Amino acid sequence: MSAKPVVGGLRGVSAGETSISTCGKEGFGLSYRGYDIAELAERASFEEVAYLLLYGELPTAAQLNDFTQILIQNRDLPVELREVLERIPANAHPMDVLRTGCSMLGTLEPETDFSQQINVVNRLIAVFPSMLLYWYRFATDGKRISTQSSSPTLAGHFLQLLGDRVPSELHQRAMDVSLVLYAEHEFNASTFAARVCAATLSDMYSAVTAGIGTLRGPLHGGANEAAMELIAKFDSADAARSGVLAMLGRKEKIMGFGHAVYKESDPRNAVIKAWSKRLGDSAGDTQLYAVSEAIDDVMWSEKRLFPNLDFYSASAYHYLGIPTQLFTPIFVCSRITGWAAHVMEQRANNKLIRPAADYTGPAARSFLPMDERA
Amino acid sequence: MSAKPVVGGLRGVSAGETSISTCGKEGFGLSYRGYDIAELAERASFEEVAYLLLYGELPTAAQLNDFTQILIQNRDLPVELREVLERIPANAHPMDVLRTGCSMLGTLEPETDFSQQINVVNRLIAVFPSMLLYWYRFATDGKRISTQSSSPTLAGHFLQLLGDRVPSELHQRAMDVSLVLYAEHEFNASTFAARVCAATLSDMYSAVTAGIGTLRGPLHGGANEAAMELIAKFDSADAARSGVLAMLGRKEKIMGFGHAVYKESDPRNAVIKAWSKRLGDSAGDTQLYAVSEAIDDVMWSEKRLFPNLDFYSASAYHYLGIPTQLFTPIFVCSRITGWAAHVMEQRANNKLIRPAADYTGPAARSFLPMDERA
Repeated sequence: MSAKPVVGGLRGVSAGETSISTCGKEGFGLSYRGYDIAELAERASFEEVAYLLLYGELPTAAQLNDFTQILIQNRDLPVELREVLERIPANAHPMDVLRTGCSMLGTLEPETDFSQQINVVNRLIAVFPSMLLYWYRFATDGKRISTQSSSPTLAGHFLQLLGDRVPSELHQRAMDVSLVLYAEHEFNASTFAARVCAATLSDMYSAVTAGIGTLRGPLHGGANEAAMELIAKFDSADAARSGVLAMLGRKEKIMGFGHAVYKESDPRNAVIKAWSKRLGDSAGDTQLYAVSEAIDDVMWSEKRLFPNLDFYSASAYHYLGIPTQLFTPIFVCSRITGWAAHVMEQRANNKLIRPAADYTGPAARSFLPMDERA
Repeated sequence: MSAKPVVGGLRGVSAGETSISTCGKEGFGLSYRGYDIAELAERASFEEVAYLLLYGELPTAAQLNDFTQILIQNRDLPVELREVLERIPANAHPMDVLRTGCSMLGTLEPETDFSQQINVVNRLIAVFPSMLLYWYRFATDGKRISTQSSSPTLAGHFLQLLGDRVPSELHQRAMDVSLVLYAEHEFNASTFAARVCAATLSDMYSAVTAGIGTLRGPLHGGANEAAMELIAKFDSADAARSGVLAMLGRKEKIMGFGHAVYKESDPRNAVIKAWSKRLGDSAGDTQLYAVSEAIDDVMWSEKRLFPNLDFYSASAYHYLGIPTQLFTPIFVCSRITGWAAHVMEQRANNKLIRPAADYTGPAARSFLPMDERA
């Protein structure tokens, strides 16, 4: 009755169709709506890419302007949501903050009909940086920040709320490129969880909340934070080389290398690696980048494992002045666009996602009265 | 590269192994850990079944007593959670309340290590009725209820918090049986979403939050509420017969019939149907049950569709004095046991769940500068 997947975890088993992106397909690599990721990262802004993912085509200047204005107008947090964020402990996992904030917003501004979906999506894209940084600044500085800023882009807005000043052009563009790279990745675990949820015809907030909770795991979104913790351990390339060799000898897991789908390289790596170097050079710091490159070399020569997007994102974010605990939440601020595109695609041609299972439990047995139980 | 599912939605495609339950397997029907559902519904309490699902075996008297005491001790809500619940609007979807409450609790009492998992699970089983009814009573009566009660069972506790009085033995046992029936159902959509989440090694709260959001959908947990809305439309069996025939003529969807896995009948239906009749007889009301039976007859004669668990659960819950909007949240209060068992099973032999997709989007195309876009 059931076709058994070859290696488990549904690896290589199609769970459906998508027109949003390709991930490792021959002749494509990674592309969003047919556009190669390297070209998008070089030439498009995050807002253009978000529009492309949601609507299927790159926006005209007028469309991009409208979309940008909508996002700017949606940055404020309802008072009840601010009150909830203020009740989340300072030592909470920031992904739990976004999971809770997204869910709470769903009680305040519910999606009662799918005709509202694009408004809900725009709201979520606009509000995640506000939600995260309102909580973060309140929890760390005790400050109730305004969630408005002078920056028209999400990248600039994020950095401005975090640092209380207008970021440099270099920093804004680096952040922007990172958001482009993280925006979409086919049926990865968090997107797939969002689609499983959406396929019961549940609401957008439920699907996105499921995505956030799934992305939180160290085997998925948590890898960039783990990479940073590793890099921060070493004060030179030499120390990194010997340290990682020793870790490999002890069979410790090194995060940020290899990929579930890509077999030879992650097409996003060259882009973020170049940005990490540029940011390091600009900061007059070469240690963090040099340490990263040394680890990269060792992983390749020893294990034939290539860095994925998460690895050089760690040093890039660090150069941008972003605290490590906010790395995975940035992933949410970007990936919400991919999740939303997938939820809308699922709804447009829905079928409940309900796999079978192979039973490995006890044979049928008769009920045991309590006094006969051991 | 990818093995295409025959009918989509992964129907009939194995997504992994489980020893927790069988669902429609030949020679098994529905069984929890090898015990037939009809026998469990007749002879076991919800607490015994919860223990069975979590630990694999029915509890001894001493184990059951310990487990019951732990649940009783875990009924209180932290003050921050109460403050959050008070900020959720009275007209919110109660599933959004549980989704948000579960997520918020995860920030207050995080699972920082999987060694804590069973404590988190016990906490969640114990606290969902408190969470739901604290919000519901505050939102509808403006009353801040105590979340303690004199009832040792979850079924009695739920009804007592809802109605401010000790429920009858008949009502307690009917509620208890309903919780047994809803506790577990293999790789249904909400459980599968919880496993996809857990497989990234995310925390228990994230997995359960994903389960709640997925169960919320009208194609999954929402069916019992839809059934009640249908039943409430008719004031006699005759009116129901002609009304449902007319609906079928207009090709309207009738909720609570048929099943994604069961092909001939839902093994839980006979149990809940008998309880619905018993509760109606005891209340001296036969209309609701008679209407239900008339709809059941029409669906079988016209469509060869059988009622699933949701259909007679609607009238049973109504006889128990439960408002319709709380039907799906009761499903959560029960299914948390199945979700938790599956998360623990996934963790014990984990592999990231990451399916493939068939690409149906645009062919590879070159980037279009803004002034060339139409």
